[in-house]
Amino acid sequence: MAETVSSPEKPNRRLDPEDAQLALARVQEQLRRHALVEYLVHQQEEGDERGPLVEGLMHRQHEQELRSLVNDLHPADIAFILESLPKEERQLIWQMVQSEFDADVLLEVADWVRQSLIETMDRADLVAATENMEADEIADLVANLPPDVIAEVQKGLTVKERAQLIEAMGYPEDSVGGIMDFEMVRVRDDVSLEVVLRYLRRQPELPDHTDQIFVVDRTDRLLGVLSLSTLLVNDPDSMVRDVMSTDYLTLNPHDTDAEAAGAFERYDLVSAPVVDDRGRLIGRVTIADVVDVIREDSDEQALSRAGMQEEDIFAPVLRALRNRAPWLLLNLCTASTAAFVASRFEDTVSHIVVLAFLMSIVAGIGGNSGNQTMTLIIRALAVGRVTNQNAWQLVKREFLVTLLVGLAGSFVAGLFAWWISSSIPIALVMIAAMIGNMLIGALVGVMVPMVRARFGKDPAIGSSVLLTFATDSLGFFLFLGLATLFLV
Amino acid sequence: MAETVSSPEKPNRRLDPEDAQLALARVQEQLRRHALVEYLVHQQEEGDERGPLVEGLMHRQHEQELRSLVNDLHPADIAFILESLPKEERQLIWQMVQSEFDADVLLEVADWVRQSLIETMDRADLVAATENMEADEIADLVANLPPDVIAEVQKGLTVKERAQLIEAMGYPEDSVGGIMDFEMVRVRDDVSLEVVLRYLRRQPELPDHTDQIFVVDRTDRLLGVLSLSTLLVNDPDSMVRDVMSTDYLTLNPHDTDAEAAGAFERYDLVSAPVVDDRGRLIGRVTIADVVDVIREDSDEQALSRAGMQEEDIFAPVLRALRNRAPWLLLNLCTASTAAFVASRFEDTVSHIVVLAFLMSIVAGIGGNSGNQTMTLIIRALAVGRVTNQNAWQLVKREFLVTLLVGLAGSFVAGLFAWWISSSIPIALVMIAAMIGNMLIGALVGVMVPMVRARFGKDPAIGSSVLLTFATDSLGFFLFLGLATLFLV
Repeated sequence: MAETVSSPEKPNRRLDPEDAQLALARVQEQLRRHALVEYLVHQQEEGDERGPLVEGLMHRQHEQELRSLVNDLHPADIAFILESLPKEERQLIWQMVQSEFDADVLLEVADWVRQSLIETMDRADLVAATENMEADEIADLVANLPPDVIAEVQKGLTVKERAQLIEAMGYPEDSVGGIMDFEMVRVRDDVSLEVVLRYLRRQPELPDHTDQIFVVDRTDRLLGVLSLSTLLVNDPDSMVRDVMSTDYLTLNPHDTDAEAAGAFERYDLVSAPVVDDRGRLIGRVTIADVVDVIREDSDEQALSRAGMQEEDIFAPVLRALRNRAPWLLLNLCTASTAAFVASRFEDTVSHIVVLAFLMSIVAGIGGNSGNQTMTLIIRALAVGRVTNQNAWQLVKREFLVTLLVGLAGSFVAGLFAWWISSSIPIALVMIAAMIGNMLIGALVGVMVPMVRARFGKDPAIGSSVLLTFATDSLGFFLFLGLATLFLV
Repeated sequence: MAETVSSPEKPNRRLDPEDAQLALARVQEQLRRHALVEYLVHQQEEGDERGPLVEGLMHRQHEQELRSLVNDLHPADIAFILESLPKEERQLIWQMVQSEFDADVLLEVADWVRQSLIETMDRADLVAATENMEADEIADLVANLPPDVIAEVQKGLTVKERAQLIEAMGYPEDSVGGIMDFEMVRVRDDVSLEVVLRYLRRQPELPDHTDQIFVVDRTDRLLGVLSLSTLLVNDPDSMVRDVMSTDYLTLNPHDTDAEAAGAFERYDLVSAPVVDDRGRLIGRVTIADVVDVIREDSDEQALSRAGMQEEDIFAPVLRALRNRAPWLLLNLCTASTAAFVASRFEDTVSHIVVLAFLMSIVAGIGGNSGNQTMTLIIRALAVGRVTNQNAWQLVKREFLVTLLVGLAGSFVAGLFAWWISSSIPIALVMIAAMIGNMLIGALVGVMVPMVRARFGKDPAIGSSVLLTFATDSLGFFLFLGLATLFLV
């Protein structure tokens, strides 16, 4: 066993997502063999007495390999592997993870995986994993923990930690209060850097992502920040108040996490102090939380555009159904409404059947063109680039661009219509309807996000359903209406 | 002028994106007034001799207000304001920015804005702005700078900096080499922390985002990393080699920036060393660059889904046309092909006109359902969750989910078809075609990204056009084909 002890000769634990992916493939391979052995042994179970023995041997071997594979990884990589396995295999692997990693892995895994891990742990394991967590970390897990475990863990907290836990639980998940932590270094402004250095040397370690320490007065009011860089390059005899910076960003616990992320991005921050309305330092947000917020927001956007929420790719099929069906039903309703609108022109279509094949082109291009406009407007709104002064300019520009693209595109569409119908009037109706529907797309693409943003809603959500609804129904109406007026 | 000098009484420069947004609104307001004065003076130019005088006075006042508004901001906020203005106003404001901020603002602004700023600067300004930049920063600007300025700036570089510039220019923009910088602190492993602390104290400042310093040997081979936290909490008499960490992530300059971003996210890094194939330290990537990469990737994805590239919302209309038209023309082609497929069933449709209104529902739902599958698969591929072992499982699951959603959804659609056509056979054809087309959507949604990923291409790009093409054309074919077989 000597070689498993950490020693100078031991190779580094490499941090590398690609290694984690290779480890995942090997874990899956081992699990497959494991299942195969079980199957074979099960097959010959009755005839052969050595069955259970062989099975036991093989199992132990597989298990040992899996154990060493998994426990050699960084907790974030263990979390990745657990997220990438179906529930039963995930729980099998989770039981092989050394308990010292339990806390870190539980904090790393995605929300939709955590519950399935906690299910397999008994009360003692859970208490052991959570009792050394920080208050803000416990707050993140509270939703998943059984009440008796929470009670037990709370007993072990100091009065201050319990107050922090209650505070952290009081903020919404997507607020600065929901992502802040309480670990930070505070110093007074009337001491020298030498005193600060000696104070730091007495700590076992600094909180993760400490790039600056906070200068506060007796009542915890924030007076300035002292970056480690400033601390290290200045004369130790300098006083904190003479070298600290007073140009800094502060966050309010009620700010949204997206606002915090925007500020971190713009000013390239690693950490930022959170102060309450009276200017008192109550917490700290770090770049690690912010990167998670940015990634989650981007994932959420991609998923919500397809009408879904985050989904465990190995969740039971019924849960996936619940996730996806509502959006499809909504789309079915809008498509049916559009079909109903078109069916009002049954006489026209039965006279000129080719209209039936051209009308979906008109509807589709209007939707695609409107989607381009909407994507741009949503982005401009997201970064705060749209103001009262320039909103009108933007709208005018979008209409002009759409009109020009429409002129070019509808000419091509008109040629197609002429080719398929051998009728110039039909081609002209096609051109007019297509330009008209693209302008409808531009109008909806501009208005819906702007109106939603004006009322404080997320401009992205639901916009695309409304857009498709408008360009489908009105596209059909415009095209078949014009055809009825001029062709029949 | 005394009050503009930085003094202890001067209020902090607040870093706050909301302040920058307010400043933007005020800048726009001032610009509007400025334009109004010009217009009024122009109107009465001939009749009134005081015209030019009033104009001059008003202009100076507006200009002074604008100047102090803008120059009071963080360079990143100045960049935000410049990005949010049309070209002429942008250039007007840019001329008011103090030259000491020029370099920072040029580095902060988006690519599509930089060119319009550089256009307004003369050679001396440009040389002054760039000559104090780091080699990696100059490399980022090279594409936008006139050749004579580059030559001039190169003359001012040391031999080492010139080598770094050439190295930085040699890597693609989206590689680790393209985002790394060369500023970092290196120490040897055979010195004490006290020596390191004294060495740091001799620096004017540490490079931005220094959370660790790098331990190298005589030939610059990386031996370990020493976090500032370790440096600060340990006894100054400890030797570097005894406290440095050897568990760390290294990047290769040829890794993609997306791989680096994935690693930073997973391991919560602030900086990471870049080493060449021989293990020698050549650069460093920081979280600030990584956050930009994450944000740009997410923006690019959102835009490319709508068939666009990053666009200046105030760019000339013709440039916007070039950006948007190709995608719309491509969609026009696929929609026309689908229409052509449908038109082969003209006889059937002229017999049963209601098919014309139902066929777009079949096509639309297939596309939406396939889009859900594709979104999930693209995400699973992006995080490396799809392996040879589980690919088949994922495919089976997607088909099962789609089949179940299809059964439920097509029942509703069948009811609608029955209501609108009063024909049970039509409703049955509708149900069969819809389930079939949803399965086609699932097949394309799974296969296209997986095949693209297998050949090392970005699974997201172009997938949605192919999906719509398949579900439209095959949807029409399936529905009208079944109708021709069973109803005519």
